[in-house]
This record gives sequence, structure tokens and C-alpha cells, in this order.
Amino acid sequence: MCPHVLIPFKPVNPKTRLSCVLSKEEREAFARTMLEDVVSAVRDANCTPVVVGTELYDSEDVQITVPDTDLNTTLNALLPDSVAPILILMADLPLADSGVIKLIFATDKDVALVPGRGGGTNAIFIKDPKRFHVDYYGTSFLKHKKIAENEGLSCEVIDSFRLFTDIDEKEDLVELLIHGSGKSRAYLVELGFALTSEKGRVGVERRQ
Amino acid sequence: MCPHVLIPFKPVNPKTRLSCVLSKEEREAFARTMLEDVVSAVRDANCTPVVVGTELYDSEDVQITVPDTDLNTTLNALLPDSVAPILILMADLPLADSGVIKLIFATDKDVALVPGRGGGTNAIFIKDPKRFHVDYYGTSFLKHKKIAENEGLSCEVIDSFRLFTDIDEKEDLVELLIHGSGKSRAYLVELGFALTSEKGRVGVERRQ
Repeated sequence: MCPHVLIPFKPVNPKTRLSCVLSKEEREAFARTMLEDVVSAVRDANCTPVVVGTELYDSEDVQITVPDTDLNTTLNALLPDSVAPILILMADLPLADSGVIKLIFATDKDVALVPGRGGGTNAIFIKDPKRFHVDYYGTSFLKHKKIAENEGLSCEVIDSFRLFTDIDEKEDLVELLIHGSGKSRAYLVELGFALTSEKGRVGVERRQ
Repeated sequence: MCPHVLIPFKPVNPKTRLSCVLSKEEREAFARTMLEDVVSAVRDANCTPVVVGTELYDSEDVQITVPDTDLNTTLNALLPDSVAPILILMADLPLADSGVIKLIFATDKDVALVPGRGGGTNAIFIKDPKRFHVDYYGTSFLKHKKIAENEGLSCEVIDSFRLFTDIDEKEDLVELLIHGSGKSRAYLVELGFALTSEKGRVGVERRQ
């Protein structure tokens, strides 16, 4: 059986570093389409997505509603109650596909970590969640490696640019336009986003 | 038998976008250590590295010396003469490891492409080099996909953050400090580079 996949999601005023190119309403719609792409990849891997947010949103997905917006507090309250393996997957990974999710589950280690750009951790797979706790923000990848080590848990680092690429800033939209195929890419195109090339560097612009 | 791996290398005044933190001599030494890390990963995968440069450099690696510094001209002159499969691998990928190189060779497609950040192509594996030509710069990843398609060649996109991460700019050094384990990381540490964290964002600074 495929483990449950916890997907933390912030529906209100998300992705503020995209404010230079998207309004608050557009950022909320964009975050939602990215979540839908992630949920779709999880379903394609025959797993059950569980969206963890501070409020319910309109969908048929399984949802857990939590009072706290702090990722660490929220997840560390859930982990000790988990009797089955869990994958924690970020909601801003629209390049996720079923291949890499299956690759994570195939690990023969106790824990699998998928790094995100800039020291982040974009996915954590924990076979025995009671023995692990999360510590996001900053160089969380190094912190999570240390936590596994301190707990005596073996750890695999999964090599994936699809999960390495979280969408936070304008330049990240280049990756989504080039490598994406889901709803969030379609939404960007609908808004007029297109690739640009200047002096050999590839960028993105919003055409009116 | 493992295919030959062509590694284009620019020994003189390389990596100019790192000029803000490294002198010309340091950039040349750093580029050389990155090349050594790539060569080492290729050897670990039981393959033969062939360094393609405009001048010989001091090493026991197999080398091809070419008159032209243009990547496309250089490689497209070599490909038609190749009777065996070839992997073209960039020299600024110090996170490369034998695992991903073996994964590339295991493809059942005619061509395997490994994207680089910002639309680049950091590795191309071609089973029948006579039927392919390269077109680097700009969104080369999309161009290479199109070239394969036009030639009727099946194509796999390899999912790897290790090969996605070419080292061009100061912020890329963060990835090398976090995920690297070879000579180029050691060289950075020797020069005084260390991770910083400000407002939750991870960066890099050079301490004197």
C-alpha cells in the first residue's frame, strides 16, 4: 500500500516573493493550481494526498485543518500519531511527477530527503514517523540530515531537479514554463507569461 | 563497454559571473577543480573522460585540443566521426556522481537530455552521434528536444538536481557547499567561503 502524502498548503496570501508579477488574487489562484499539480502527481503514483492547511478549501481531497500556520509546529504535532510511513511533500512543486514519488517510496533507507534549492527540504519520507521530527526554514536539508543521524536512522538523498525546483521567485517561473505540463503552467500562459532571451540568459516576462 | 564522455572545458578566464567573489586566477583554479570532480564522477562510473579544450592542460586525462572556443562548432565537428555512443557533459557540474551517469547510460531511448537551470542542457547522451547535432546557448534544452524530434529520435529527460546545478553565479556556491563532497568544495572552503543565513534565506560569504 502506498503511504499517505502530507501536503502543507497556505491558501491565503501565499508566494509573496511573486508579488512583483502577480496580484494577491493571482498568487492565491496560482498556489492553488500548483497544489493541484502536486496532488495529481501523488494520485498518479497511486498514493493518497492529504492536504494540511489552516482552513478548508473547496476540493474532494482528504484534508486536515490545523490551527497553526507554523510548519514545524503543525507537522511535529501530527508525526507522533502516525503508525504508517509518511511522505511530506511541499505544495509549490508543480514539476513533481509520479516517477520521482515512486522513486522516493522505493528507498531501502529509514528516511529519504529531497533537497530544495538554497538549502531547503522539499520532500521527506519517513518510515517510522514517531522517530523523526521536522525542522524547516534556513538550511533545513542539513538539519534534517542531522536529525536522522542523531536518531540512528539511515538516510538517502534523492536526486531530482523536479522536486528541487520550488517556485518562489520570478526566475523560477522559467523552469515551470520549460518543464511543466500541468494546470499551473497553463495558468501562467493564460496570464500572458512567456520566455524571453536576452544576451543568452533566459528569463520570463508578462505580456499584456 | 561504457561510452566516452566528452567534457568541454575552458581553462582561460572562465566563470566570469563569479568575478564578484573570485579573482581570475582563483576562477581558473576553481574551474579546474570542478573539472576534476566531473572527471572523477565519470571514472567512478567506469567511463573514459575525454576533455575537449582549446589548449592542453596538465593531466593524464585523454584530451582533444580544438582551435575553436565555440561549443557548437567544436562539438558538431566531432559528432559525425563518432561511431560509438557519446555523452557530452559540462565541466561545471561538481555535484555530478556516478549514480546519475549510470542512470543516463541506462536509458532505452535514442537520446537522453539532462536539463540545466534556466533552459540549459547540462548533459546529452547520443547513441548514434551521426544523427544529432548540438545547439547550445539560450533555451538549448528545448532546442535539443526539437532536434531529437526532427531526427525521429526518441528522447528521455533525466531528472537530476546534481546535473541541473551548474555553478555560474555566487548563489550557486550555496549548492556546492551544501551538496558537494569533492575538490571544488574543498577549494571554496580553503578560500574562506561559508554559508550564511539571513531572514531565513541561505547565502554564501567569503570570510577573510
